[in-house]
Amino acid sequence: MICEENIITVEVAGLIFGDGKAKFIAGPCAVESEEQIYNLAKELKKCGVDILRGGCFKPRTSPYSFQGLGEEGLHYLNEAGKFYGLPIISEFMSIEEVLKFHHLVDIIQIGSRNMYNYPLLRTLGEIDKPVMLKRGFSATYEEWHLASQYIISNGNKKVILAERGIRTFETGTRNTLDITAIPFMKCRTGLPIVCDPSHAVGLREFVEPLAFAALATGADGLMIEVHETPEKALSDGRQSIELKKFPELMDKFRDFQRR
Amino acid sequence: MICEENIITVEVAGLIFGDGKAKFIAGPCAVESEEQIYNLAKELKKCGVDILRGGCFKPRTSPYSFQGLGEEGLHYLNEAGKFYGLPIISEFMSIEEVLKFHHLVDIIQIGSRNMYNYPLLRTLGEIDKPVMLKRGFSATYEEWHLASQYIISNGNKKVILAERGIRTFETGTRNTLDITAIPFMKCRTGLPIVCDPSHAVGLREFVEPLAFAALATGADGLMIEVHETPEKALSDGRQSIELKKFPELMDKFRDFQRR
Amino acid sequence: MICEENIITVEVAGLIFGDGKAKFIAGPCAVESEEQIYNLAKELKKCGVDILRGGCFKPRTSPYSFQGLGEEGLHYLNEAGKFYGLPIISEFMSIEEVLKFHHLVDIIQIGSRNMYNYPLLRTLGEIDKPVMLKRGFSATYEEWHLASQYIISNGNKKVILAERGIRTFETGTRNTLDITAIPFMKCRTGLPIVCDPSHAVGLREFVEPLAFAALATGADGLMIEVHETPEKALSDGRQSIELKKFPELMDKFRDFQRR
Amino acid sequence: MICEENIITVEVAGLIFGDGKAKFIAGPCAVESEEQIYNLAKELKKCGVDILRGGCFKPRTSPYSFQGLGEEGLHYLNEAGKFYGLPIISEFMSIEEVLKFHHLVDIIQIGSRNMYNYPLLRTLGEIDKPVMLKRGFSATYEEWHLASQYIISNGNKKVILAERGIRTFETGTRNTLDITAIPFMKCRTGLPIVCDPSHAVGLREFVEPLAFAALATGADGLMIEVHETPEKALSDGRQSIELKKFPELMDKFRDFQRR
Repeated sequence: MICEENIITVEVAGLIFGDGKAKFIAGPCAVESEEQIYNLAKELKKCGVDILRGGCFKPRTSPYSFQGLGEEGLHYLNEAGKFYGLPIISEFMSIEEVLKFHHLVDIIQIGSRNMYNYPLLRTLGEIDKPVMLKRGFSATYEEWHLASQYIISNGNKKVILAERGIRTFETGTRNTLDITAIPFMKCRTGLPIVCDPSHAVGLREFVEPLAFAALATGADGLMIEVHETPEKALSDGRQSIELKKFPELMDKFRDFQRR
Repeated sequence: MICEENIITVEVAGLIFGDGKAKFIAGPCAVESEEQIYNLAKELKKCGVDILRGGCFKPRTSPYSFQGLGEEGLHYLNEAGKFYGLPIISEFMSIEEVLKFHHLVDIIQIGSRNMYNYPLLRTLGEIDKPVMLKRGFSATYEEWHLASQYIISNGNKKVILAERGIRTFETGTRNTLDITAIPFMKCRTGLPIVCDPSHAVGLREFVEPLAFAALATGADGLMIEVHETPEKALSDGRQSIELKKFPELMDKFRDFQRR
Repeated sequence: MICEENIITVEVAGLIFGDGKAKFIAGPCAVESEEQIYNLAKELKKCGVDILRGGCFKPRTSPYSFQGLGEEGLHYLNEAGKFYGLPIISEFMSIEEVLKFHHLVDIIQIGSRNMYNYPLLRTLGEIDKPVMLKRGFSATYEEWHLASQYIISNGNKKVILAERGIRTFETGTRNTLDITAIPFMKCRTGLPIVCDPSHAVGLREFVEPLAFAALATGADGLMIEVHETPEKALSDGRQSIELKKFPELMDKFRDFQRR
Repeated sequence: MICEENIITVEVAGLIFGDGKAKFIAGPCAVESEEQIYNLAKELKKCGVDILRGGCFKPRTSPYSFQGLGEEGLHYLNEAGKFYGLPIISEFMSIEEVLKFHHLVDIIQIGSRNMYNYPLLRTLGEIDKPVMLKRGFSATYEEWHLASQYIISNGNKKVILAERGIRTFETGTRNTLDITAIPFMKCRTGLPIVCDPSHAVGLREFVEPLAFAALATGADGLMIEVHETPEKALSDGRQSIELKKFPELMDKFRDFQRR
């Protein structure tokens, strides 16, 4: 890559983000039931996924939408991860959730809507747990960099960035993946950076080429939404990869990586 | 106005937002000292300002910038307001700040960066205090409307919206004032809406015409940044009106309103 | 206004744009028939409109949409204008159209899609006819200013700017009216500037408050789309004011202006 | 790729765009002298470039900037291409330029600023010469698709699309490369699509990873700006690759492609 001198690595449950080999994070948008997450964990482990994702505290645009299973979902996720030997990631939205539940996850996800939530970021600086800081959907590179500094300057150096698409005038896709962010932010901050093509494009048929693009620019990881029956998902079904098609996709990712 | 059937009014310390007469909110970006805020309160009261604003907990893009005087500043603001008979507004950024300090203000300001902070909004729904909900700088009308519903559906109907400019490609101004938001959101939600031209444009010489535009579209209030010596302000000096020029501006606003 | 020292005025058929009194331009999106434009011209003249607009060469996003009546429509517009004593404005899209037809209009409209069409702008610099230069829907102030310089530096100083809304992330309205552009560009360039609220918002019910906002910021004119039966219009019906309701609107504009 | 059923191929001087193998277009932003373009042509041919680019009629934001060598430059480009056996591409901005000069190029480039120039696009539909249609920098997929239809529906089916970055709020880069456009537009239109990372990012150090990303998503070609001494370029020097470093880059592109 371009700026090799200042590479920072972040360890998550033995996995080294920033070591030059992309990590694969996959799972459902939301934990929907115990059975669902166990089944997904089993299958995702089989096909080589590194980390299991699952939303429990969901930041939904409408207060009337499904808000996630909360603490109950988090326990399902935690137990499914342990049972199948998968580290887990889940999103927290408040200081209270971070303090109460951070011991249950291997990495804390901070979503786009909270990238500017500075009291939350300061709290993350005071705990000993890796953080994946998603880019606010209209955040500039500078704002995103400084948001990471709210965590790092408060004492927690384990920050991984995540590009998940930005808001533009284009309405053909959910967001616009800013692929440039991957080499640019890696170069500017030295931090590991993963790409979430699922949220970026919002259409499952384009997740594969965008994932390849991310790997081609040096992304340190991919985060992909997978669901057993996307058409029945309680959220984000349109962008989720069907579970039974995911092993083939993982094979392609590994092939791409080996080249 | 266009949609007269569903007008909602919100009372703040005896002032009725939504009664057809714009209210004037003014003060410094940040409370910088006890002396500063007392002096500003005295002069602003004299020229007819309705509510005193002053930031104490400041959401700054950089963790290395001045972060506000915090609790100390809030006490200065509260006391200056009481001394000169001015209701006060100040921003809170976390659930903890809301619960601990809401009794010290007459109206709580929720800034752009927290419009998507749903746990915070839910907490605001559970207290009995008016809330001014600023638009996220890239929030759609729908997202902003639904954010207000996070407060209202949790029990607090006293919500006032505030348009403060949106993020666009234009770099000649700080943000782009979306003047359409004023009649559009009033029509869609029925809620009172105020305009903050200072943050929208970021250049003091354009605050006056934009304030007129807001009044012309039926804004229920204006929020204007004023500073004794803008060039020495600890934040946002470029957009602050100089205190000694403010009485003349207030005269113009009242003339405009009387027409 | 803010920058009074460098005000430039532009004469169009005896009307002085930039003299401090807003001019009113109205008419249909497109000239649809001889009968239509004569009838509109008669009624618009009666209620005090200054200039008649009507599209003949229409820049439509799709090649399969109605493209305007072309030369035939232009003759109808020209004759209707003469018959009722109204100067006319119409859009040209190519050098050929400008050279062939500019004698038929009192002012040439250059639409958003052609603001960056520099060979066209250079040609406009070489003729003796006022030009209304609409802002490209993603043009910065600087690009717009420099586009006007392509005309002026080639010899034609009669340029009037027109703000018609910019492209943003907001999908609730057709475009986002950048009200700041009016005082900002007037200040920066000295040129007269008119506002086209119809294209900006795309919804007729919001044309009135946005027109007031434009007048409040010092716009030198308004351009409003009017149609006899908007629901049957061949283009832009959703944003056109119904003809029979337009006289009341003109009364309001004049009242506003007199204040 | 995703939508294999409707692939369209376009031949340019024996090269087949859309055959699954990316073509390489390279050259200076602007033809600056006869010597410059001959020297570049020689070196670019040597390292395997397929098509030589060079701007002659330059659409510059300011009328006071260097506007290109015009017809003189076009003859240099044409002769250099012939001498070294390289097909050439250059931009035309007006109907007149197209009609007068299209026989001198192998493919006509239509720049971002002219994507909405419908009279120009219609003219391109009437000639027998391949066209590279760059995306307007704020054009939606739908508008771009329909712009291509202005050419195709008028009779010229040889259209190649080019993604060159879109305008967003981000100011850290010149534009934002919309990598999704490559698979999305290929899928939607079936047309070949090339990527211009140089204009998209505006910073030469990021051209390489973005070019890889484009190849990874299935781009049918790359267009790269190369200059002998970028720091002395009359335009776009900041984004031009230095000629002496370009052979190594071409090797990397071919390696990537072979994988």
